[in-house]
Amino acid sequence: MVEKSPQPSKSSAMWGGRFDAGPSAVMEAINASVDVDRRMAEQDIDGSLAHAQMLSETGVISSEDAAAIRQGLEQIREEIRAGDFTWSAALEDVHMNVEARLKAIVGEPAGRLHTARSRNDQVATDFRLWLRDACDRIDAQLAEYQKALVAQAEKHVDQVMPGFTHLQTAQPVSLAHHLLSYVEVAQRDRGRFADARKRLNESPLGCAALAGTAFPIDRKMTAKALGFDRPMANSLDGVAARDFALEVLSAAAICAVNLSRFAEEIVLWCTRRFGFASLSDAWSTGSSIMPQKRNPDAAELVRAKPGRIIGSLTGLLTVVKGLPLAYSKDLQEDKAPVFQAIDDLELALLAMAGMTADLTFHGAAMEAAAGEAYSDATDLADWVVRELGKPFRDAHHISGSIVKMAEKRDIPLAQLSLDEMQSVEPGIDERVFSVLSARASMESRTSFGGTSPVRVREQVAAWKARLG
Amino acid sequence: MVEKSPQPSKSSAMWGGRFDAGPSAVMEAINASVDVDRRMAEQDIDGSLAHAQMLSETGVISSEDAAAIRQGLEQIREEIRAGDFTWSAALEDVHMNVEARLKAIVGEPAGRLHTARSRNDQVATDFRLWLRDACDRIDAQLAEYQKALVAQAEKHVDQVMPGFTHLQTAQPVSLAHHLLSYVEVAQRDRGRFADARKRLNESPLGCAALAGTAFPIDRKMTAKALGFDRPMANSLDGVAARDFALEVLSAAAICAVNLSRFAEEIVLWCTRRFGFASLSDAWSTGSSIMPQKRNPDAAELVRAKPGRIIGSLTGLLTVVKGLPLAYSKDLQEDKAPVFQAIDDLELALLAMAGMTADLTFHGAAMEAAAGEAYSDATDLADWVVRELGKPFRDAHHISGSIVKMAEKRDIPLAQLSLDEMQSVEPGIDERVFSVLSARASMESRTSFGGTSPVRVREQVAAWKARLG
Amino acid sequence: MVEKSPQPSKSSAMWGGRFDAGPSAVMEAINASVDVDRRMAEQDIDGSLAHAQMLSETGVISSEDAAAIRQGLEQIREEIRAGDFTWSAALEDVHMNVEARLKAIVGEPAGRLHTARSRNDQVATDFRLWLRDACDRIDAQLAEYQKALVAQAEKHVDQVMPGFTHLQTAQPVSLAHHLLSYVEVAQRDRGRFADARKRLNESPLGCAALAGTAFPIDRKMTAKALGFDRPMANSLDGVAARDFALEVLSAAAICAVNLSRFAEEIVLWCTRRFGFASLSDAWSTGSSIMPQKRNPDAAELVRAKPGRIIGSLTGLLTVVKGLPLAYSKDLQEDKAPVFQAIDDLELALLAMAGMTADLTFHGAAMEAAAGEAYSDATDLADWVVRELGKPFRDAHHISGSIVKMAEKRDIPLAQLSLDEMQSVEPGIDERVFSVLSARASMESRTSFGGTSPVRVREQVAAWKARLG
Amino acid sequence: MVEKSPQPSKSSAMWGGRFDAGPSAVMEAINASVDVDRRMAEQDIDGSLAHAQMLSETGVISSEDAAAIRQGLEQIREEIRAGDFTWSAALEDVHMNVEARLKAIVGEPAGRLHTARSRNDQVATDFRLWLRDACDRIDAQLAEYQKALVAQAEKHVDQVMPGFTHLQTAQPVSLAHHLLSYVEVAQRDRGRFADARKRLNESPLGCAALAGTAFPIDRKMTAKALGFDRPMANSLDGVAARDFALEVLSAAAICAVNLSRFAEEIVLWCTRRFGFASLSDAWSTGSSIMPQKRNPDAAELVRAKPGRIIGSLTGLLTVVKGLPLAYSKDLQEDKAPVFQAIDDLELALLAMAGMTADLTFHGAAMEAAAGEAYSDATDLADWVVRELGKPFRDAHHISGSIVKMAEKRDIPLAQLSLDEMQSVEPGIDERVFSVLSARASMESRTSFGGTSPVRVREQVAAWKARLG
Repeated sequence: MVEKSPQPSKSSAMWGGRFDAGPSAVMEAINASVDVDRRMAEQDIDGSLAHAQMLSETGVISSEDAAAIRQGLEQIREEIRAGDFTWSAALEDVHMNVEARLKAIVGEPAGRLHTARSRNDQVATDFRLWLRDACDRIDAQLAEYQKALVAQAEKHVDQVMPGFTHLQTAQPVSLAHHLLSYVEVAQRDRGRFADARKRLNESPLGCAALAGTAFPIDRKMTAKALGFDRPMANSLDGVAARDFALEVLSAAAICAVNLSRFAEEIVLWCTRRFGFASLSDAWSTGSSIMPQKRNPDAAELVRAKPGRIIGSLTGLLTVVKGLPLAYSKDLQEDKAPVFQAIDDLELALLAMAGMTADLTFHGAAMEAAAGEAYSDATDLADWVVRELGKPFRDAHHISGSIVKMAEKRDIPLAQLSLDEMQSVEPGIDERVFSVLSARASMESRTSFGGTSPVRVREQVAAWKARLG
Repeated sequence: MVEKSPQPSKSSAMWGGRFDAGPSAVMEAINASVDVDRRMAEQDIDGSLAHAQMLSETGVISSEDAAAIRQGLEQIREEIRAGDFTWSAALEDVHMNVEARLKAIVGEPAGRLHTARSRNDQVATDFRLWLRDACDRIDAQLAEYQKALVAQAEKHVDQVMPGFTHLQTAQPVSLAHHLLSYVEVAQRDRGRFADARKRLNESPLGCAALAGTAFPIDRKMTAKALGFDRPMANSLDGVAARDFALEVLSAAAICAVNLSRFAEEIVLWCTRRFGFASLSDAWSTGSSIMPQKRNPDAAELVRAKPGRIIGSLTGLLTVVKGLPLAYSKDLQEDKAPVFQAIDDLELALLAMAGMTADLTFHGAAMEAAAGEAYSDATDLADWVVRELGKPFRDAHHISGSIVKMAEKRDIPLAQLSLDEMQSVEPGIDERVFSVLSARASMESRTSFGGTSPVRVREQVAAWKARLG
Repeated sequence: MVEKSPQPSKSSAMWGGRFDAGPSAVMEAINASVDVDRRMAEQDIDGSLAHAQMLSETGVISSEDAAAIRQGLEQIREEIRAGDFTWSAALEDVHMNVEARLKAIVGEPAGRLHTARSRNDQVATDFRLWLRDACDRIDAQLAEYQKALVAQAEKHVDQVMPGFTHLQTAQPVSLAHHLLSYVEVAQRDRGRFADARKRLNESPLGCAALAGTAFPIDRKMTAKALGFDRPMANSLDGVAARDFALEVLSAAAICAVNLSRFAEEIVLWCTRRFGFASLSDAWSTGSSIMPQKRNPDAAELVRAKPGRIIGSLTGLLTVVKGLPLAYSKDLQEDKAPVFQAIDDLELALLAMAGMTADLTFHGAAMEAAAGEAYSDATDLADWVVRELGKPFRDAHHISGSIVKMAEKRDIPLAQLSLDEMQSVEPGIDERVFSVLSARASMESRTSFGGTSPVRVREQVAAWKARLG
Repeated sequence: MVEKSPQPSKSSAMWGGRFDAGPSAVMEAINASVDVDRRMAEQDIDGSLAHAQMLSETGVISSEDAAAIRQGLEQIREEIRAGDFTWSAALEDVHMNVEARLKAIVGEPAGRLHTARSRNDQVATDFRLWLRDACDRIDAQLAEYQKALVAQAEKHVDQVMPGFTHLQTAQPVSLAHHLLSYVEVAQRDRGRFADARKRLNESPLGCAALAGTAFPIDRKMTAKALGFDRPMANSLDGVAARDFALEVLSAAAICAVNLSRFAEEIVLWCTRRFGFASLSDAWSTGSSIMPQKRNPDAAELVRAKPGRIIGSLTGLLTVVKGLPLAYSKDLQEDKAPVFQAIDDLELALLAMAGMTADLTFHGAAMEAAAGEAYSDATDLADWVVRELGKPFRDAHHISGSIVKMAEKRDIPLAQLSLDEMQSVEPGIDERVFSVLSARASMESRTSFGGTSPVRVREQVAAWKARLG
């Protein structure tokens, strides 16, 4: 519980009563951040533990004081985990709340903890630690999502479905091939989070307010204790930079957009019009009156999630734009959008992994749709190039004329007679029929990265090995 | 309290434990909206009261049932206000929570309330009512902010200060004139909220799921009871539209940007470099060690607020983009960004009104700065045009040469001798000195809308009359 | 042609050669705006004509000078329209280009034109005039789009189609009803542009650099001559405000999002899976090889257009955020995003009006789809409420049980026997069959705003009268 | 010149005349992309050269045909470079324009070039090549900017200036230290572009329309010829992915925001109020009338640039969100925002490098400001901790009391007598005076990353070595 802090659900009432809200109430409401930043309490304690240990080892404080601080901080950690900690908006933020409680527990040594640091480097340290953990969680969730995709792909290598461009039937593809394309994208998403994590994993601790300190501290020691690769090399940069948060938000926004594409397909595939797939009750919401109605709510929400995450990215870019060095209070607006974006992305990832595993595919509907709309017309043209040596642009023309002929009679290409085809291009012979079907088309595309099951099976195997 | 709903502060831990989070937990977490939409509980009850009354008057339900429903809803309203209501995430949203509780209180009649409506029109109704209230609150807060500006302006009509372009000293202006420019902007902000309010004040109630209903309902009756101007004319539009929320968000984003400009000026003016103004302790945060340090935190936060509000606007535009009719679950993502934006804007408005009233201006510093940098050079050029009949472009050249002369000796224009000026333009005579000072410059600009105190005083009077 | 200005297509090469690009080249490239703002040449000339006329009538310049200026400006207008005007980046912007040319044509009087104004009020005036025209064009285009929708609606009042929620079949609706929902939205879009136009239609001319002027100008005269409602009342506001551009951009972004929803539906309806509609060759792109393939490129592009328009809005909000008064060069970044957004929106509106008129609907496919998926289940429940007096929640349960029964046998509700239905609810009698079909469902929803053809026909008539 | 394509400057006139614009004109206007994508002409030719060579080596086309194609493409490259190429909007895009011209030059072999590829993989290939070049240019420009910063830093290691928090004087820092903080940020920006470049450097060529091809092509060969690290492993991913463009846009937006912070400082420092620095005429715009006025236009424009770049990022995220696989026409909206963002960023980088080198710093003003406002109060507190063993929180209190005493008399700390200080804390002795001055404060902060000249000099040396 946060004492006296504005309750979101009551806030408008309170702020709306303008005449009752004296300056101090408004100031506290706009200034306090503990409602948001207490999510970094664990990181704040970790940072203080490392700092106290270093202060002791470098002789800035005594080992007795360090021991008292350590013991107090661990007690606070337990109180917070147990939900017994009383947060106070009057104490502004997580740092002051923890320090005030430490003072109450251990007395004077608490006053020595803040030597050679300030809230400016402290919050930057906490935030980086929190984001590092977030990157790690998201990487694990992306891997789970990939595994779910590969598991489904493995079962559907030979399942033919229509490949779309412009949502119009274009060429037949393997369902597994389609699913694996999302594995590729997710791997690049993992790469973005990994790069962001690597770049942010430097320690601002000891940059103090903005200029460093005259105390003989050892920043490498605290950096190492907290798992950072190194201390940041410029104290102004240490407290003023927020590009690390922007980079994680960018990775999150791109990842959310990537997820939304498959979410859109799930929505489409589960419609009665497509009928390619269905979700079980666990991933649908029903209607008490229309039992057949399985609304793909989770997929719709994943499709919508990029909205807020893009908004968070846009918002924080706007906040940081044009801010002079070093710390300005504007930077306090950094954590809420980041926490919200990470929460939304994690939820979206869990939902996508869950839905992917849950999907039942309707193979017959997919195969029927794949054979429609002359999706083998390119194969006919390619055959003309390959077997008759025509330039591709001419072969296109030949194939187009034959398709028109079939379209008039509303039959597939394969049901035209050889005579009919030869009336367009005399060189065509019997062998052409071997390429005229959705399945034949899919199987023929054996180029590297192509949809032929022989290629797709290799990819499934490679991903299984890679994902472990 | 919301039972079993994800606690934001613990959520990442929970979702992070992917293997423990079964589909149902993830589905509930992504699907439930009650954490957010329960802020519309009052509006939901108002809507249900109007609906029940209408159902009774049109004979769809009995007057006894309507009375029971009314009594039950009023009891629920009291429970919510008192904080005694138990919200359940399993019941998904505010509508189901209220209806379930109604059932518990009044029994069977509760089951008749949902006749001829659905959650689709219900949520649209609630949301419009909530936004209408928000527009009204914001209008009142903008008026308070305007009053604070006018009150300060009235005291500082004759206070000269530098007018800036490119943050370079350009021409002297009246401090009151500067403050009144924000009153003008705020008036247009009020206009935008008023227009948005007018456009959204139509009732979707009775649009039902998406197609209207076969029950003989009277939508005009419910519209009137809820203060709407009329029922919406198309049932699909009634449940699918969200342009009303986007319009309010746009007005909020533009308003926040407008506020941020004055906030930036407060930050600048309160620096030691400018020294134009200071904020009292009530609107500053201090430092235990640097007592002279009055950080203008509230102004910085107002400057930062556009970030999240722009983000909310961007985000919701993105969510709605490309959504087919009628209702899609994506639209559930509409309320969180709107609530957050309105909260942030209200807080920013209260802070700006408070800071505006609180500001102490340092007149001497302003006046000194106003006289620097040859801010009367345009006045010299204008004098040459007016009195000597030179084309303005030529007068510019003359004034420029004289300024250069003064600059070399590092003295103001008024300290040059007449001889010196005549060496550039022989026609210049003694009268020129009457226009050469910051104050004279300010006073001379008597065109409509200009900064001369005679004009500014008229504006102050007009605004006082207008704001009441 | 713009002389020496950076050619977009070569720019990166030029800028990339950093060592060859002296400061002056980079400075000119970043500073010059004439490539963009010359689109306001007509408005610039109109503003100068009004200004010169006023200067003459108030005695600030002679009538001979005013006549020379007028004649020169009209000549320039002709040169620009004919494409004979040579734009120069060295002259920075449209204002300086026009004035320099005026000087070349009429000599000394040109130097008197800039009396009592500056580029700051000039550009604000031009921009408002340009946006006013844009609002008018967009209003006319929205009206054309509405007419196209109403014309199609009039032809399809009795055409039943599935109404969707979550893109799942929900309840049958009239195609005309669906189309008219977009007419409603477009009307609100028109309202937003009308309100923005009204609010921006004030004249900044005569605000001069930022402080007004000492010349005895008559700002009401120029305001009237340019069709403005009044002069702006505060000179700082006149040159610093950009909320007018932000408001037009907001209206554009919301309008584009609204259009994108129908565009998405066109894409879906034209797929082979839906088969509800098709576009003619004029509004499709084909493929030389797959003659049946009609890619709805224009619909896809309209669906995509909100991207850049939202981006333009976000971008300009970001630029203006936190800018101190009065004019800062940052504001030069206002026109490019606005021009681009308006161009994109106009193109989208023309494309939507064109596609709407062009669409051929496939009634049989729509009607077949409307009858699927127990879309009359709500009608059954409503019948139970209405005729048997059951509470709606109980009727829902009854209907649900009957649907399950039908679903098991894979038949529509209307093919169940009365006995079967009575096994669930004994009170059901023969009359129930009258509500069990897509068409009956559609026709029954006669509430105001509902989808019943009797209601829809009223709406078509009302819109025809309203749109003229 | 593009024939018949809409001229941006006339477009609104054309589109505005709705009744004259038949479907085909609107369709061409919305559909054609050649105005934008012809900037990729070089990349398109490179891609075709590699493809033709591979087709020849794998025996798909003859070596004679390949030679003809090669010769024709090189001729086209020359025509384009010379400005002699006639672009046609009717031919839609850069690919068709080049191919049509190739046909005109070499005849039949041109028709064989498009074997085993489509425009979908072709445009993805071109776009990746273009972005790879852009990343390389930006990296070089960032390095130049860093060098300019380091060169200035080297000259100003011992220059003391006020370090700000909340734009309030906080603690003295070295000007070099301040400048180097931007070198650190720029290095991370380079890292982001390098990572994006690495991730996008995979070849989509040979993915064909979406499914791969049955021709025996060698995708590794074309990948290698074009400098790609490898061919993309999934053909659907190859044509549908745009995360690579989003990632570059993210890096650009973050970089632009980082630049805007220093730009804001340049604007502030060059005001008369700060007086810390000035720009030469080359990087200012003047006023013909106020010769002292050096408007820092370029700095303001760099400050504004994030607007459009953030807008481009937001816009493209919005476009890609929710798009089903594989290619949809929406993706055509990807290039304009990217080109604009890259152009803006390159221009901003050149301007920042130029301004950085150009800045003249006013050391005396900086040093005077650094000594104000008790910026050595923290040093006093630290001394009390260090020498008297007090807890930091107590030392803060002591220092605060002493500052208050000095503030009352309006003198710096160093001008208090030892007696006065001892009245607050008896343990204070003469040694305290050694830490009481801006310079002493700066010099004392010797922790790693701190502002002491000994540390800053090390950093300058390290960066010089690193940047070469």
